[in-house]
Amino acid sequence: MIPLPKGFSVTGVRCGLKNKRNDLGMIVSDRDAKSAGVFTTNQVRASCVDYSRTAVGSGALRAIVVNSGNANCCNGEQGVRDTQRMAELAAEGLGLDPGSIAVGSTGVIGQLLDMSKVEKGIREASQKLGQDVRTFMDAILTTDLVEKWAWTNPGRKDVVSPQSLTQRQHAATQEALVIGFAKGSGMIAPNMATMLGYIITDADVEGLDLQAILKRAADASFNCMTVDGDTSTNDMLILMANGASKKAATEEEFESALTAVCVSLAKQVARDGEGATKLIEVRVQGSSDPKKIARTIGESPLVKTAMFGCDPNWGRILMAAGRAGVPFLTSDVRLSLIAADEEHVLFEDNAPASFDPKRVSSALKSDQVVIDLRLGAGDSATVYTCDFGYGYVRINAEYHT
Amino acid sequence: MIPLPKGFSVTGVRCGLKNKRNDLGMIVSDRDAKSAGVFTTNQVRASCVDYSRTAVGSGALRAIVVNSGNANCCNGEQGVRDTQRMAELAAEGLGLDPGSIAVGSTGVIGQLLDMSKVEKGIREASQKLGQDVRTFMDAILTTDLVEKWAWTNPGRKDVVSPQSLTQRQHAATQEALVIGFAKGSGMIAPNMATMLGYIITDADVEGLDLQAILKRAADASFNCMTVDGDTSTNDMLILMANGASKKAATEEEFESALTAVCVSLAKQVARDGEGATKLIEVRVQGSSDPKKIARTIGESPLVKTAMFGCDPNWGRILMAAGRAGVPFLTSDVRLSLIAADEEHVLFEDNAPASFDPKRVSSALKSDQVVIDLRLGAGDSATVYTCDFGYGYVRINAEYHT
Repeated sequence: MIPLPKGFSVTGVRCGLKNKRNDLGMIVSDRDAKSAGVFTTNQVRASCVDYSRTAVGSGALRAIVVNSGNANCCNGEQGVRDTQRMAELAAEGLGLDPGSIAVGSTGVIGQLLDMSKVEKGIREASQKLGQDVRTFMDAILTTDLVEKWAWTNPGRKDVVSPQSLTQRQHAATQEALVIGFAKGSGMIAPNMATMLGYIITDADVEGLDLQAILKRAADASFNCMTVDGDTSTNDMLILMANGASKKAATEEEFESALTAVCVSLAKQVARDGEGATKLIEVRVQGSSDPKKIARTIGESPLVKTAMFGCDPNWGRILMAAGRAGVPFLTSDVRLSLIAADEEHVLFEDNAPASFDPKRVSSALKSDQVVIDLRLGAGDSATVYTCDFGYGYVRINAEYHT
Repeated sequence: MIPLPKGFSVTGVRCGLKNKRNDLGMIVSDRDAKSAGVFTTNQVRASCVDYSRTAVGSGALRAIVVNSGNANCCNGEQGVRDTQRMAELAAEGLGLDPGSIAVGSTGVIGQLLDMSKVEKGIREASQKLGQDVRTFMDAILTTDLVEKWAWTNPGRKDVVSPQSLTQRQHAATQEALVIGFAKGSGMIAPNMATMLGYIITDADVEGLDLQAILKRAADASFNCMTVDGDTSTNDMLILMANGASKKAATEEEFESALTAVCVSLAKQVARDGEGATKLIEVRVQGSSDPKKIARTIGESPLVKTAMFGCDPNWGRILMAAGRAGVPFLTSDVRLSLIAADEEHVLFEDNAPASFDPKRVSSALKSDQVVIDLRLGAGDSATVYTCDFGYGYVRINAEYHT
């Protein structure tokens, strides 16, 4: 059972924007929540992005309404009106102010929303609020293969997620809860992989600068993740903190919990990347701009296809590092792959290391691989990505508008 | 018959670095040639890149020796010595100074050159110089599917290439000749797609700043080309001008001819991209940085897979343009696809245009597609790329080190 923070209820219903599964979801707080948001940097963006940025900026968010199956993007003035109407419908159903409601959309670009379906869905959802998180997650997923969620408590280090080995229970009476839901990297016909993330908490975060904390957490997680380097028009990450647990979290406790949840979600999104067979962590150590190098490796189609093929192709990794535009010396490079509990050094002391290609290739069949690149003295960064195989092409080429 | 400029001879032989085809080539001028070079910006680079940069800088280049099948990269000090030795062997065979000889290598990274084979090859090549360009081109290709060459005369606009409809003859007695050969975008097991370009001319270019002219020509051609965004460790483009025709070219005539040859070669490389089924020209008009937008579109895996799937997916193209980081207004956008002699407008007046998806999809089956994006007032740029399909994954994933 996936827990919910106190004072929150959720739901998801099917209104017909998609053929199967739920397509309209809601998160509602029974009291004003402090909030923060991080939004797509793409200049071509959906009207819901602008609307939600304003709602988050109002200082007292009460609800989030999201549809999947249609991104309501590039729809001109009608699109703007439809986003506004979604908030108004939710406000009517919930007895709230439309300005206190954030709106998310994900799906096809350039087709008007069928507002009769949306209206029916929002009315129904307003009546069905409850504690069943899965109905909500189902409503925001598109062709994601799995649900993505993660939770922890401020002050604790371990995160509970679909991947965690121990599924401990949330002690609702004793601790505040930080939980996040995400969708992303499944193909959204006919367009792109929107990343939606919603994080809710009942921790008392009075006095904390949530926007700054969320931005740092996003920089350490979602902004360290890449599937194909493309950025959706509809990406958004929203945090709601309603304080209902009355348990205060220090900035350090809260930021640590929030970041852990975001990192877990980002890894789940990368692992479920289109056509992916494995999660790849690119760790770069000892550089003036390790993130730039890690991202260049993580976005290199040659590296990603090599990982798909379980090929310990260190030349491609060095090539990608070298073209990132950040200075280093080849003579300082140590490159290894970590997979299946084995570390294999591929390059060091200015020369290829002696390794058994078959053994490394076999280790690379693991569903989780670390590319570890050390360049001397300097900072460290990690980027999360996935491999790149036939599935990506199939998902993205075999759709016809 | 592919012509050669006066005073140049070429050859290609097989010395055994590859299983099939020639693998060692030479271009020799019978007199000192002015020269210029543009080299990979990758920090991880082969020793031949540094060696050739010095040779080009000497001011009097006499020859180029190139091997395929082994990039001699990441081979430490031994690699540096082997590059030097290649120049020395060529110098011995040709009776020249090693400092007047440029060296190119392309192929596998991190394996020492088999110098006994290289030595045999260089000795044999030195004895077999002639006018058969195909033996040379064969020696620099790897898994390129086709040879890439283009020529014209200073003062003429039309370029003769494998794609040109009229294969006019070169009037050797009347005109100087500018001809270029390139390889690139075929897979080089187990690493990457090196781009090698060699351009030779017998035009009298006395007084012209060849380095500046070549740099501008490269910026307008090879630097506007992308297959997968990756930059090889061994990329080089070298120009030799020996003046043997005694026909002077003005800067404008020469630069125009050189640029036309480079653009033709770049398009040939993009068209022969790994697994590509079509050449894509991305034209962006009306921006403060049109090349950045065109490159972002041209490198987007989502755009490239859509083109492979013949899907007029304008949402992906706008998404890619929007994430390039260059300001524009969606309301100013006009986007069309040009293929099979038809132009189809997909987006304008802030809304999707009405088009017949089946008809556009059918046009996209062409082996040449133009993505035409207009953003208002400002500069223009074109980027050459290719689509992205199963072939790319097959070529790059199914090799095992």
